[in-house]
Amino acid sequence: MSTITIEVSKKYDILVEENLLRRSGEEIRARFPKAEQIMVVTDDTVDGLYGERVCESLGRAGFVVHKYVFPHGEMSKTFAMMVPLVERMAELAMTRSDLIVALGGGVTGDMAGFAAAIYLRGIDFVQIPTTLLSAVDSSVGGKTAVDLTAGKNLAGVFHQPVLVLCDYSTLHSLPEEEFSTGMAEVIKHAVLMDPELFTFLEANDAKAHLGEIIPKNLIIKRAHVMADEFDTGKRQLLNLGHTLAHAVEKLSDYEINHGNAVAIGLAAICKAAHADGLAEDITDRVIFLLKKCGLQTECPFTAAEAVGVLLNDKKRSGQTINLAIPKRIGECYLYKMNVDRLEEFYRSAIG
Amino acid sequence: MSTITIEVSKKYDILVEENLLRRSGEEIRARFPKAEQIMVVTDDTVDGLYGERVCESLGRAGFVVHKYVFPHGEMSKTFAMMVPLVERMAELAMTRSDLIVALGGGVTGDMAGFAAAIYLRGIDFVQIPTTLLSAVDSSVGGKTAVDLTAGKNLAGVFHQPVLVLCDYSTLHSLPEEEFSTGMAEVIKHAVLMDPELFTFLEANDAKAHLGEIIPKNLIIKRAHVMADEFDTGKRQLLNLGHTLAHAVEKLSDYEINHGNAVAIGLAAICKAAHADGLAEDITDRVIFLLKKCGLQTECPFTAAEAVGVLLNDKKRSGQTINLAIPKRIGECYLYKMNVDRLEEFYRSAIG
Repeated sequence: MSTITIEVSKKYDILVEENLLRRSGEEIRARFPKAEQIMVVTDDTVDGLYGERVCESLGRAGFVVHKYVFPHGEMSKTFAMMVPLVERMAELAMTRSDLIVALGGGVTGDMAGFAAAIYLRGIDFVQIPTTLLSAVDSSVGGKTAVDLTAGKNLAGVFHQPVLVLCDYSTLHSLPEEEFSTGMAEVIKHAVLMDPELFTFLEANDAKAHLGEIIPKNLIIKRAHVMADEFDTGKRQLLNLGHTLAHAVEKLSDYEINHGNAVAIGLAAICKAAHADGLAEDITDRVIFLLKKCGLQTECPFTAAEAVGVLLNDKKRSGQTINLAIPKRIGECYLYKMNVDRLEEFYRSAIG
Repeated sequence: MSTITIEVSKKYDILVEENLLRRSGEEIRARFPKAEQIMVVTDDTVDGLYGERVCESLGRAGFVVHKYVFPHGEMSKTFAMMVPLVERMAELAMTRSDLIVALGGGVTGDMAGFAAAIYLRGIDFVQIPTTLLSAVDSSVGGKTAVDLTAGKNLAGVFHQPVLVLCDYSTLHSLPEEEFSTGMAEVIKHAVLMDPELFTFLEANDAKAHLGEIIPKNLIIKRAHVMADEFDTGKRQLLNLGHTLAHAVEKLSDYEINHGNAVAIGLAAICKAAHADGLAEDITDRVIFLLKKCGLQTECPFTAAEAVGVLLNDKKRSGQTINLAIPKRIGECYLYKMNVDRLEEFYRSAIG
């Protein structure tokens, strides 16, 4: 088992181990002797796969277990789905000593974490990620959110979990596409800080080495979160490839999923940064690795279209934007670019 | 003008002055040169009285001013009323540099503050209290909330304002009952820490001395908030009289308003604490002052009824509850009482 400890406003452990779900109850009980009730939040897909296993383990550990199951998918990440969860906890008279368990991927973690943050002005919650994306990225760092009509993740708070239980045997049940989405973040992390991980990924099949790869990713994520809990500085480096990715997702009306959008964004930022003299030429290596993981790297939109979406909701003329620039594999930096130059910058990469 | 500075996770000023509304724009602009858009949140009653004055002042200071007006009253303090506000801010593409202004009483401050806390994971907000209760109590300290079906204030976060503008000329327009409600908290504060204020209130008409009384109250509130921002210790002293008050409000189905409920709670805790040997005999002085301010001090419910409500939603047997006990005028302490003893304790005061 790997244990990675995060120290921010709260200190918490991430346990990474196969078949950890069966022991989730005892791991939580060992840390929260006073908790009586637990609300397990999960979607219908994950519930069918792992709900029983987790609830049984929690029950054996002496918790009174409740479950809030919602329809899977991003469409559920709304106030309309979260408010009944909070109402249900109040009905059950859950107290500040009780817990929420978020069992699932990013949508589940974001919504359950947000509910934990606001119920009684904050109760503790445990993340049990069951997707690669949530295991290496969203389950750690305390960003919680729901979507609004105007866009994704527009309402939320920072609320760190008190424990993350990563049972990577669950990742073998993931559809190929969802696994690839996680790999886009894994590759991003390697480009950010870990050239050895990058080389390892070039030469090996990630699926066969999850027990090593996940902790390496968590260490990278940790470095950024601990340096900048509230995302006002260094943590913005984690946006590597994401500036363009968000525009691509929107332009495609979310037909292009997050993983492919990030892959397109990563490929583009490498190429554009090199063309602009801001970085070494790492584009071919990055594109090779993204493709090897089944990800799309060609952008179906022009720079003009992408930058239009990127800036359309604000009068941004004359302002600057912080871009994460990959200087070389394993080293990135933040670069303030005038938004008026953004279209030209991306044009060299995506036309 | 009095300026009181609060230093917690955030540092902010409270300005107390007559006719400050007309200068609200310049006071905010002086502190937030980068803000472009401001969302003024207010209820229909306060909007009619002061909406124009504040919006004009903000406009003169160069802000783009929007307004979100909701029906007055506690019934509005819900997710159903808050979510459209957050959606509206997203539609307007308000940024992290923009501001919310909460213009009104406790309901407005609680809901607007909650919206500010969650929009983009937190933007700044300014409190402009227009009731005595919000001026001396709820506008300071960062508690935000909405009500749930199961009870009041069950969902929220801690989110401190960045500025509080207290124009106490607005308090002269308050209905007598609302003024009294604020006075219940003023008297509570005096009992907590300020024997001179208590004596002053016994001898004088509060309405004629708001410029002195409000700053004194804010200094008392500040002492508790700065010692314990997140309400896990000393700040619980501010619950003086409130344990019983919440039960009385519920039992009366909110026919007895918060001020009268707090007055009943204050009278009862003084009497019960003295009977129990925990405090000096201050009951007569406290009851005299409460009555002088038009507040009710006779509890229409029995100790059995009140304690039943107090404990009914939890299996609390064997547990303890933290009670704020008034040792003498100006000195209180927290006392852990076994819940099984609570009914007997209150019986000596309210029968």
